Amino acid sequence: MIIVGGPASNGIDEAISKILRADLIKAESKVFPDGESYIRYPRPLGNEEVVIVQSTYYPQDKHLIELFLMAETAKDMGASKVTAVVPYMAYLRQDRRFKDGEALSVKTVLGILSHVGCDSLVVVEPHHPEALKYFKGEVKLVDPIPALAREIKKEVEDPFVLAPDRGALSRAERLAKELGSPFSYVEKERDRTTGEVRIKELPQGNLSGKDVVLIDDIISTGGTMELASKVSYKLGARKVIAAAAHALLVNNALDRLKKAGVKDIISTNSVNVQGDVKVVDISELIAVRL
Amino acid sequence: MIIVGGPASNGIDEAISKILRADLIKAESKVFPDGESYIRYPRPLGNEEVVIVQSTYYPQDKHLIELFLMAETAKDMGASKVTAVVPYMAYLRQDRRFKDGEALSVKTVLGILSHVGCDSLVVVEPHHPEALKYFKGEVKLVDPIPALAREIKKEVEDPFVLAPDRGALSRAERLAKELGSPFSYVEKERDRTTGEVRIKELPQGNLSGKDVVLIDDIISTGGTMELASKVSYKLGARKVIAAAAHALLVNNALDRLKKAGVKDIISTNSVNVQGDVKVVDISELIAVRL
Repeated sequence: MIIVGGPASNGIDEAISKILRADLIKAESKVFPDGESYIRYPRPLGNEEVVIVQSTYYPQDKHLIELFLMAETAKDMGASKVTAVVPYMAYLRQDRRFKDGEALSVKTVLGILSHVGCDSLVVVEPHHPEALKYFKGEVKLVDPIPALAREIKKEVEDPFVLAPDRGALSRAERLAKELGSPFSYVEKERDRTTGEVRIKELPQGNLSGKDVVLIDDIISTGGTMELASKVSYKLGARKVIAAAAHALLVNNALDRLKKAGVKDIISTNSVNVQGDVKVVDISELIAVRL
Repeated sequence: MIIVGGPASNGIDEAISKILRADLIKAESKVFPDGESYIRYPRPLGNEEVVIVQSTYYPQDKHLIELFLMAETAKDMGASKVTAVVPYMAYLRQDRRFKDGEALSVKTVLGILSHVGCDSLVVVEPHHPEALKYFKGEVKLVDPIPALAREIKKEVEDPFVLAPDRGALSRAERLAKELGSPFSYVEKERDRTTGEVRIKELPQGNLSGKDVVLIDDIISTGGTMELASKVSYKLGARKVIAAAAHALLVNNALDRLKKAGVKDIISTNSVNVQGDVKVVDISELIAVRL
């Protein structure tokens, strides 16, 4: 087995290579002046299993094209099996046609991954695991919750896990199990016309004096977490922290969360996290699945 | 037949629709705050031929992913045939492995286009036509040279067509035929270490007092054209103009060309040309191929 670090491997390639004592090669990559990507393997690949590590955080489309180029080239060079380790897999949220005529992006992207030669796919905490059915090969999911929980335990005394919407409820349950704490969820609703998000239903359970831990798969603009933090304080929370597998932190998300009273953000290195976030390394959790 | 305008259709969708009197629908598109693309067809597609117009200029990877999403969705919605009109097709220059281990980008990108359901592909002036063999369906090439020639004729009295490198020689020959002029080429060489480009061999023929027309498929950074313009003036050219199918004009290419004495740049609307360039509409040349 050989580990290949792509341009968006975020150090996970090196860590996996050390843990597994497997050879590491870094894919040469550059962006031409016009914006096209270039990929090259600096040495031949034998008839061996090639594990490509490439996350697909922003710019997602560039990182995807790089991944497609790396996978097909590995196959062309004789790799017997290509495993794509994609700690953060983009486009997983467009996993159904919410309106008629919409692109089912996850189907297209995962279908292409199969087409370009990926036999196996390793993904950390996908939005909905069932969306991965569009990948034709073997899929392995990496659960970052136990690793996040270890870090969270350092921050809280009397935790209460809160899912910032109903979709995150099963994640809250999994985290609550690790922390030995109660859990609940906030029911939000989105105004289909204005896009505004409101609280529809308050969480059940007593948040008074608790250290509330918000948990979700992704923090993007931070809007959902912001709302849940404000609600938590209204219901008497002592402090609020936020945890997520993938801290995309778009625009001013960090500021927004700080202003809403979120004291700490805990996430993983599935993306190249920018700013004041406690980052948990998930390399080992990935390595044991290879 | 229905024409679908993608986010990078550059007005060619509307023009084709008018010329062919075919229905036009604009694909709804947006970019989510995190950078992912969204595509939607605003109305159902019947069991009909769908012609998607989407160029793949900068940002190439985003425009490619949008094209992949549009093609697969059209097929999912029942299109009997999907034709991709890609006036400027990205990644065509990486059409062989110049060094061992390189990604053969054109193979990957065109292979994906076939995979996502494109049955037919229409491209304006590809770098090397033979690279299109990696597309599995029908390929139609659109020759912009006659249209460029009509515009060039307005600018020159005693033309001499010059290919700025040997690779552009056949284009120079085609243009010279349209203009009824002599033609030649400059032989350049690139220092493999420094990347610097030098003149290796001067053009044959007498450029003295001539209106030199430089012709290439792409103007990217303008470096090749810059060198050829300087050489032309040294050899006595009266003026120099530059023509190309695809004016990418990366960074300060326009300034660079002006400083090298290029009096006019003539190109097509295959890309969203920025700045002081004479743009020839190639919609009709595309429409007649549909």
